[in-house]
Amino acid sequence: MASMHYYPKTLSSSPYYSSNTRRRCFHLFSFSIPFLAKLKTSQQTLFIVRNCTGVTAQPSSSEKKPRLVDTKKPEEKLRAIRELFSKPGIGIDAYIVPSQDAHQSEFIAECFMRRAYISGFTGSSGTAVVTKDKAALWTDGRYFLQAEKQLSPSWILMRAGNYGVPTTSEWLNDVLAPGCRVGIDPFLFSSDAADELKGEISKKDHELVYLHNVNLVDEIWKESRPKPPMEPVRLHDLKYAGVDVSSKLSSLRSKLFEVGSSAIVVSMLDEIAWLLNLRGNDIPHSPVMYAYLIVETAGAKLFIDNSKVTPEVMTHLKDSGVELRPFIIFRLAAKGVQLWLDTSSVNAAIVNTYRSACDKYLAKLLSKNKSGALEGPNGRIAHPSAVYRISPISMAKAVKNKAELEGMQSSHLRDAAALSQFWAWLEEEIHENVVLTEVEVADKLLEFRAKQYGFLDTSFDTISGSGANGAIIHYKPEPESCSVVNDKKLFLLDSGAQYVDGTTDVTRTVHFGEPTSWQKECFTRVLQGHIALDQAVFPENTPGFVLDAFARSFLWKIGLDYRHGTGHGVGAGLNVHEGPQSISFRFGNMTPLQKGMVVSNEPGYYEDHSFGIRIENLLFVKEANTPNRYGGIGYLGFEKLTYVPIQSKLVDLSLLSTAEVDWLNEYHSQVWEKVSPLLEEGSPRQWLWNNTRPLVKQ
Amino acid sequence: MASMHYYPKTLSSSPYYSSNTRRRCFHLFSFSIPFLAKLKTSQQTLFIVRNCTGVTAQPSSSEKKPRLVDTKKPEEKLRAIRELFSKPGIGIDAYIVPSQDAHQSEFIAECFMRRAYISGFTGSSGTAVVTKDKAALWTDGRYFLQAEKQLSPSWILMRAGNYGVPTTSEWLNDVLAPGCRVGIDPFLFSSDAADELKGEISKKDHELVYLHNVNLVDEIWKESRPKPPMEPVRLHDLKYAGVDVSSKLSSLRSKLFEVGSSAIVVSMLDEIAWLLNLRGNDIPHSPVMYAYLIVETAGAKLFIDNSKVTPEVMTHLKDSGVELRPFIIFRLAAKGVQLWLDTSSVNAAIVNTYRSACDKYLAKLLSKNKSGALEGPNGRIAHPSAVYRISPISMAKAVKNKAELEGMQSSHLRDAAALSQFWAWLEEEIHENVVLTEVEVADKLLEFRAKQYGFLDTSFDTISGSGANGAIIHYKPEPESCSVVNDKKLFLLDSGAQYVDGTTDVTRTVHFGEPTSWQKECFTRVLQGHIALDQAVFPENTPGFVLDAFARSFLWKIGLDYRHGTGHGVGAGLNVHEGPQSISFRFGNMTPLQKGMVVSNEPGYYEDHSFGIRIENLLFVKEANTPNRYGGIGYLGFEKLTYVPIQSKLVDLSLLSTAEVDWLNEYHSQVWEKVSPLLEEGSPRQWLWNNTRPLVKQ
Repeated sequence: MASMHYYPKTLSSSPYYSSNTRRRCFHLFSFSIPFLAKLKTSQQTLFIVRNCTGVTAQPSSSEKKPRLVDTKKPEEKLRAIRELFSKPGIGIDAYIVPSQDAHQSEFIAECFMRRAYISGFTGSSGTAVVTKDKAALWTDGRYFLQAEKQLSPSWILMRAGNYGVPTTSEWLNDVLAPGCRVGIDPFLFSSDAADELKGEISKKDHELVYLHNVNLVDEIWKESRPKPPMEPVRLHDLKYAGVDVSSKLSSLRSKLFEVGSSAIVVSMLDEIAWLLNLRGNDIPHSPVMYAYLIVETAGAKLFIDNSKVTPEVMTHLKDSGVELRPFIIFRLAAKGVQLWLDTSSVNAAIVNTYRSACDKYLAKLLSKNKSGALEGPNGRIAHPSAVYRISPISMAKAVKNKAELEGMQSSHLRDAAALSQFWAWLEEEIHENVVLTEVEVADKLLEFRAKQYGFLDTSFDTISGSGANGAIIHYKPEPESCSVVNDKKLFLLDSGAQYVDGTTDVTRTVHFGEPTSWQKECFTRVLQGHIALDQAVFPENTPGFVLDAFARSFLWKIGLDYRHGTGHGVGAGLNVHEGPQSISFRFGNMTPLQKGMVVSNEPGYYEDHSFGIRIENLLFVKEANTPNRYGGIGYLGFEKLTYVPIQSKLVDLSLLSTAEVDWLNEYHSQVWEKVSPLLEEGSPRQWLWNNTRPLVKQ
Repeated sequence: MASMHYYPKTLSSSPYYSSNTRRRCFHLFSFSIPFLAKLKTSQQTLFIVRNCTGVTAQPSSSEKKPRLVDTKKPEEKLRAIRELFSKPGIGIDAYIVPSQDAHQSEFIAECFMRRAYISGFTGSSGTAVVTKDKAALWTDGRYFLQAEKQLSPSWILMRAGNYGVPTTSEWLNDVLAPGCRVGIDPFLFSSDAADELKGEISKKDHELVYLHNVNLVDEIWKESRPKPPMEPVRLHDLKYAGVDVSSKLSSLRSKLFEVGSSAIVVSMLDEIAWLLNLRGNDIPHSPVMYAYLIVETAGAKLFIDNSKVTPEVMTHLKDSGVELRPFIIFRLAAKGVQLWLDTSSVNAAIVNTYRSACDKYLAKLLSKNKSGALEGPNGRIAHPSAVYRISPISMAKAVKNKAELEGMQSSHLRDAAALSQFWAWLEEEIHENVVLTEVEVADKLLEFRAKQYGFLDTSFDTISGSGANGAIIHYKPEPESCSVVNDKKLFLLDSGAQYVDGTTDVTRTVHFGEPTSWQKECFTRVLQGHIALDQAVFPENTPGFVLDAFARSFLWKIGLDYRHGTGHGVGAGLNVHEGPQSISFRFGNMTPLQKGMVVSNEPGYYEDHSFGIRIENLLFVKEANTPNRYGGIGYLGFEKLTYVPIQSKLVDLSLLSTAEVDWLNEYHSQVWEKVSPLLEEGSPRQWLWNNTRPLVKQ
């Protein structure tokens, strides 16, 4: 599915936008999918104990409580949170509530949806700011209508990206008298984002106050707050993972050694899951578990709610040299550790705790060093300090090994079989004039997928968009308001699944009746872009943005374009959106595409209030085996993972070159060859046969 | 012609490489062309008086002196310069001599070739560093052989970009004891470059010492130093310039006003020439004159050697409100001016002088302000300060107006007529087995061009490369060593001219005998890339790098590539290389291509020790008139300026699509239509006819 992109203007006015590529990447993804998914609720509280001696954790009581309904009115919540402003140890004039959890996750557990609770606005993207007399909510263009409906009159809606709308910090600088105290929960801001915010508001002499020990929304949320998820963690089989944990840790440690660091703190949940060959179930769509991990030169410590850890997982961790331990950052400083910190993802609370611990430790050393005995050859005292770099796990995870690619290939074929069953069913229903809504169609697709071996979850909320709804890039149909799928309109279906061995993400656009010639022209130009990117060959070290224009050029020729990137990374049995690579020229993401990376290829075209077109396959990067290797380097290309027919009815053959027609016929021949063995005789197999017949250009 | 690019690794090890886009741009260009051109020597000294009260200038005596031969030996020069190290007011441990003049020019006058004088190395790119006991010279891969030959044993050759070779500052940090003084002439470093150098050497506590009042090389060069050029300045006719000086100044002043600045100092010579509708003759290939310009809210001051200013030019300047004045930066501070400084191009001496003047002025204000009377509403005293931004003239100059485009079009057709005469002549000579060297061929081309109306100069040293020499991207044949042009080898000819109304730059590759099928395949793929870029349509606000891959993709398919950018900007009757736009993805130059910009389209392929291929046209950006305008913005494309046949013999028709064959035939039909009227009956016209016949794909 498409990951939204923003034009520079929008970016700079987006709250807390950081210039760091990695954070951009995840910022980008955080706009990708509406969040209102079905959450598997749980009954175990996991929380970070907030005290002044450091960051530690304790499991809470495990008594089961039914989920309570939110009875507080918006004004009541605002009154309650403002009362807390003046409590001892707080003393603030404004409080900022972002969308994120403490791990910069794209999807988050319901108990961490604090911004939705305080503001009433449930869209996936937004920032709430409460001052003593005002409350404002920032969101982007996709959510203006929804926010208008959901916000009470006590809230000001800030339409981010619109001309003249201030950023969060510009607004704070405007409405607060100089020299105010602006509070945040430092767990919910990456260190970089907090630093940027601090710099911005310091222009009006405001102070950014880290409230380490209390989250003001949690304080007023109380009983009605959903309990944190407590699903057990499971092993990710070595046959799918390909590399055992000890080898991954050893490779990570050699990276630490290279940069002179002796430990790393990992807070990105997919990085922890990947590194430890574990999977969780704490968050919808993302098979990860809430945890923190510290990997040291000798040993590793996982901080997690112990009750999620089965005896099997415990043994697995022990065998890999990973202990379950409280998460105590300050002790690392006392041990003299040079800690690797990726400030684009690690939250400000952790970074801050480590920094103050280092300062304290150095002060202690200096007071002991009156004789000068501790000084090294350069006259300086060896002391702990941070190494600031992008996490090396991000790249290691992005480059898939053989087993991961095999799992991806195999799960994609099962997914294609489910999709064949689904499309065959849908075509029949519509031809029999059965009235089906977008939601019913998406539910049926889930039924077919759920029957496939190893199915776990959808990988994001299915985008089932009929007619004009197809033009809403991150459309999520709701049962009470959604449209009907019929033979009068284009139908765009973007969906994916989590399987035990892989993650899928595929978009097809179809028409069950007669498409207009304009729809066919648009579809064909999108297809030409899709083919050009699929067929691209490029030298090693080429960043993805270089290829982005290939996917757009056929639309550009007639003055069309699409407002999202062309490709994003995909995890293997992990998050459907992952970095660090992308195919989108607007972000200057310089990460080169590397052999083994998985990316989506999803150009589109969207006509507001009319129709949407997107054609998406997942691809993996492989060597291109060119006859030459100019520059003594390798040349790379793509191999497809997705094998689902592209509707021939929508192709305007007169626009395609012979080579493009050959591509389409070759693809369909492969689809039949690879997917038909998974289908028994019957209508899905017949549908697959019908939809993979070669086209002939006159 | 091609502008070299460097891979990130080379860039970071290049001395004084700055991350600033604009400087990158010119840094890029500074590698473009070997400098050993015929210099029009002159007999008038222009220099900046170096004193401690500010930067001022005086014309020197105008007595004529014959140019003297350099008699000093390399060791003698080193001894002499080292003796100066310990003189009063100097006191340094090392001295850095860069290639540049005080204006960051691509080509420079011979009297400013200080690095060549001190080191003996005459390549266009290099940096010399002299310490009390060592001397080292940095240059890049194109010049390793030449530098080996030219450097005396007293010099260490630093092969920049090779593995393990330190940068200038790394080397200084290594060879000097901590806490040394490193001297530079601050006129020869952009302010950004000086700041970067300062930061680098401060790691070893070295101090960067600005020697404002003396250039140590000039001190020892003395009588043998060529005199500065003193050719008269001429008016650039309004019919070619399109916009008068008053309008240009008024538009510049509104930009100053927008950013709260009240004056700008302009040091880039092409910006001064463009802004004042003047042209000079101080530098080979670039029709500019040495000068500085200060534009204030009311008035403008040009600092130039008065003897170059004819009465006609004087009247023109007076009419435009421009005075001839000494260049006294420090007075601007005393006048309370907020000075716009582009630190990527303005030299460190100017920036530094203005900054200290501001400091002094503020101190004076503060001492007067004991009563607080001078304080403004915010409690601060209004005082002069700098506004740091890229020069707005760069973009204004890059976007050509109607008259400039017409001049470019008209001069390109005359250039094409000269090239038709030249190619017809060369083909006949070779078929008659006349032995011709690369230099003889280039000289003959100059003869044909010189007969065209408005011819002034070549726009760079002609790259006339036969066989293996064609693979040397910036090859310059020398009479004593160059190859023969014959019917056994490919011949690459990259050349251009300065006309009164425009600037040309064109490359063609031809074979006078039978090319191999491999040469044909390579040529055809280069041509396909050339066509793809020529035909590109793209939305407004697209930076050039987005289009770069179009020109490479056909080579990439078979594992080939080229190691230079695809396109550079070109001035209108000005420098053949100009920014800020470029078509080269490796530099992250985010400048959007805009309607009216001129760019080169010059993909190539080079096989070391064998042959080189490049096909170059100049293009200008225009509206594409697409049937749609998605996003409510314009879509842009290119129109050709160059109309010179592309040799059909080298085309492998089986590789071309029908659309590509159509492009070639349509181009040749236009070439005939536009250029044949400029040729009388005879062999050139016959040659043009023969070489513009349509190809038919079987």
